[in-house]
Amino acid sequence: MTDPVSEAADVKPAAAVNAEAILGLGPDLVATVEDAIDSNFAYELKSLIAPLQYGETADLIELLTPERRGRLVEIMRDRFDPEILPELDETVRDEVASQLGTATLAQAIARLESDDALYLLSSLEETKQRAVLSAIPAALRATLEEGLTYPEDSAGRLMQRDFVAVPSFWTVGETIDFAREATTLPNDFYDIFVVDPRHRPIGTVALSRLLRSKRPVRIADIMTSQPATIPVRMDQEEVAFVFKQLDLVSAPVVDDGGRLIGAIMVDDIVDVIEEEAGEDLMHLGGVREGDLYAAVFDTGKARFTWLFVNLLTAFLAAAVIGQFRGAIEQIVMLAVLMPIVASMGGNAGTQTLTVVVRALALKEVTRSNARRVLTKEILVGLFNGLLFAVLVGSVAWLWSSEIEIGLVIGAAMIVNMLAAGLAGTAIPLGLSRFKIDPALASGVFLTTVTDVVGFCAFLGLAAWLLL
Amino acid sequence: MTDPVSEAADVKPAAAVNAEAILGLGPDLVATVEDAIDSNFAYELKSLIAPLQYGETADLIELLTPERRGRLVEIMRDRFDPEILPELDETVRDEVASQLGTATLAQAIARLESDDALYLLSSLEETKQRAVLSAIPAALRATLEEGLTYPEDSAGRLMQRDFVAVPSFWTVGETIDFAREATTLPNDFYDIFVVDPRHRPIGTVALSRLLRSKRPVRIADIMTSQPATIPVRMDQEEVAFVFKQLDLVSAPVVDDGGRLIGAIMVDDIVDVIEEEAGEDLMHLGGVREGDLYAAVFDTGKARFTWLFVNLLTAFLAAAVIGQFRGAIEQIVMLAVLMPIVASMGGNAGTQTLTVVVRALALKEVTRSNARRVLTKEILVGLFNGLLFAVLVGSVAWLWSSEIEIGLVIGAAMIVNMLAAGLAGTAIPLGLSRFKIDPALASGVFLTTVTDVVGFCAFLGLAAWLLL
Repeated sequence: MTDPVSEAADVKPAAAVNAEAILGLGPDLVATVEDAIDSNFAYELKSLIAPLQYGETADLIELLTPERRGRLVEIMRDRFDPEILPELDETVRDEVASQLGTATLAQAIARLESDDALYLLSSLEETKQRAVLSAIPAALRATLEEGLTYPEDSAGRLMQRDFVAVPSFWTVGETIDFAREATTLPNDFYDIFVVDPRHRPIGTVALSRLLRSKRPVRIADIMTSQPATIPVRMDQEEVAFVFKQLDLVSAPVVDDGGRLIGAIMVDDIVDVIEEEAGEDLMHLGGVREGDLYAAVFDTGKARFTWLFVNLLTAFLAAAVIGQFRGAIEQIVMLAVLMPIVASMGGNAGTQTLTVVVRALALKEVTRSNARRVLTKEILVGLFNGLLFAVLVGSVAWLWSSEIEIGLVIGAAMIVNMLAAGLAGTAIPLGLSRFKIDPALASGVFLTTVTDVVGFCAFLGLAAWLLL
Repeated sequence: MTDPVSEAADVKPAAAVNAEAILGLGPDLVATVEDAIDSNFAYELKSLIAPLQYGETADLIELLTPERRGRLVEIMRDRFDPEILPELDETVRDEVASQLGTATLAQAIARLESDDALYLLSSLEETKQRAVLSAIPAALRATLEEGLTYPEDSAGRLMQRDFVAVPSFWTVGETIDFAREATTLPNDFYDIFVVDPRHRPIGTVALSRLLRSKRPVRIADIMTSQPATIPVRMDQEEVAFVFKQLDLVSAPVVDDGGRLIGAIMVDDIVDVIEEEAGEDLMHLGGVREGDLYAAVFDTGKARFTWLFVNLLTAFLAAAVIGQFRGAIEQIVMLAVLMPIVASMGGNAGTQTLTVVVRALALKEVTRSNARRVLTKEILVGLFNGLLFAVLVGSVAWLWSSEIEIGLVIGAAMIVNMLAAGLAGTAIPLGLSRFKIDPALASGVFLTTVTDVVGFCAFLGLAAWLLL
């Protein structure tokens, strides 16, 4: 029956495949949607958007200008898929939420799974949150209010309230029949949780395991015992670490008494990992998440703070240089060369800092090996310090025709690279010991050290030896 | 039957919960293991390690010094869990692989799932790879060799060869019976793939959906049609994007003819997301992955390259300053203040760069909104440029007692902040258009721009207006 000709015709060329080829959203679609919005073609717009998944629709909304965004949301209003909302960037979501209004928002939240509903609700500002809550049916409102009592970014905020739990003495057949009959099960689940009479998790059964077992088999015989249970107040970053370590797809969440109260699913963990890794990157760069979609004024204001702190350290460095005005007046070449020492120290320190911040996030640096990492970074600083001392020293000698200037800059280079290795390790380790996010604050401290040490060592040695 | 007293005693205080409380590996265990290795207590060691999951054992091996690591692997050799190997950092894995030797390694690979086996094999250097391949049974060897033909970091390298595929005319009952009888199914799976007679995916059924449906129901009636199929050569970053967008837990992989040849599972995607986000962070910081465990010499050598490139830009900046030696000689205060302009520009540029690099990685900046992002960043540069012009200008005026110096540094600040916004956006966008990883190369270009523009604007304006 196979027809080789038509089959060959089906074969697509194996050219560059990217996600856009699979997902519905490409630049062409965005342009078409923009045109349709501008021409007010509501019907065409609806049919363009219909085939998109909620994650793609969210991306589309984000890509539009605020004006077009507003008009699109207005057109979508009567059939707005609530699943789009949790996928939106916070700044954009606030915009869309305001536009939808309290009543529509309350309806949307009521239609979401409990974890998404809670997430959406918690992202609203307080007055709005209260207004939306009061428009939600009482039973759901109580659940959401309880959810809000858990700390932000904790397991309690991530978990779904619906899960499948059975006693260990049930059989596979009884469990399947229960799943077929029950009405309050979640849409998707990957594991069945096994509980003791006090409702504490004592095991899990992967659905694939359940499916492959015969009906009379006892759950107790196929369950994985001693499951990793997630305390409801655990931080989401720790939860993600447990998921990664144990390759989990779902995990039971327990209250302070160890009783099963919810389930966390891997798709939420994927978001957490993405978010946490992005946060570290943004913090190291001196910016916050959500920056992309914020208005110019908000972005400018948010970035101002970080730049202001940097300005203070820049003035500190300038004050150090100010101490050596006399030396610079006599040898102007010092002013020409001094930024090299500071800049190399700053870059070497940033390398160390990046490695240590990342290793802390992945829990690869712990109390057990912190000293070893510090020793290594100092040795690496010495290694590159010596190499660059020779390199920079030679160039400076040739440029200034004075070997003494070469010697001084070489020595300063070694000192500053050592300082960079030391500070690049010690600052993030110290901050994390005091429970301060090392990605957020390390950079400023580090450049302060490498600027001050760099200018001091170079100009100080020069003043001492050359004048 | 409930005994409130004993129950209350079971309740643990809700103190700081971290992952260590759930996972077996804490600093105390590491210390105990180190003692046991030093005292050569092989039996004690084995019982200490026995309760750990492979991911935790991998972490433990990473945390030890190379000497202790070697001795531990020797003790574990006869019962070495192959699942540990893919979890190890590459540098550490090479060490352990060498120690285990070709025969043990080949056995380990043969016992792993096909995706892990391929990953492990592909990470070996070529001579070692060939040696290990030739020690593997012929059937598996052929599969692995085929896997190696797929590009690195492609879907073909991530996929498992075992999956569950059924025709759409089967019933739920037939599917469950098939799963119970089949012998080559993967250990874990989350979706059943539905294929047409040419073995092309036409739908998926989540296991929870299957479980909740009655036996006579047709697969065609419960399947999600038009599933996202992953081309075997698609880059893993794109695959991860599809998984995130569609909240998938598994997806079918197809060959160039559209035929189902494998399945990708979410736990591998979690690793990809973690890896890609970490890579961007490391690249922006001028380092490579695996840096933490490399020896001092290797780390020093790897970082040297980046520092060397930075040195060239530092010399360029110094050459710019050199052009204005005359001005500095007459007004030493210029040398004191000039690093402030460069440093503020560098920091503001890094903020922009970080936002754009992150947005590119998340596909939040596309052709559709690139110009809008650029305009915004220039406006933010102007906004903060004006603010800092006033701030820095005033301080410089007070410090130097000359209003002209304040005016010059203020003007230079505005120019450099604008340049920072422009370069911080245009450089990563340009690099990504030429398919160069913007995280890897943007930083050098950016600081070159902000240093050169900063020094030129400040010293040039000063030379022009003040002398």
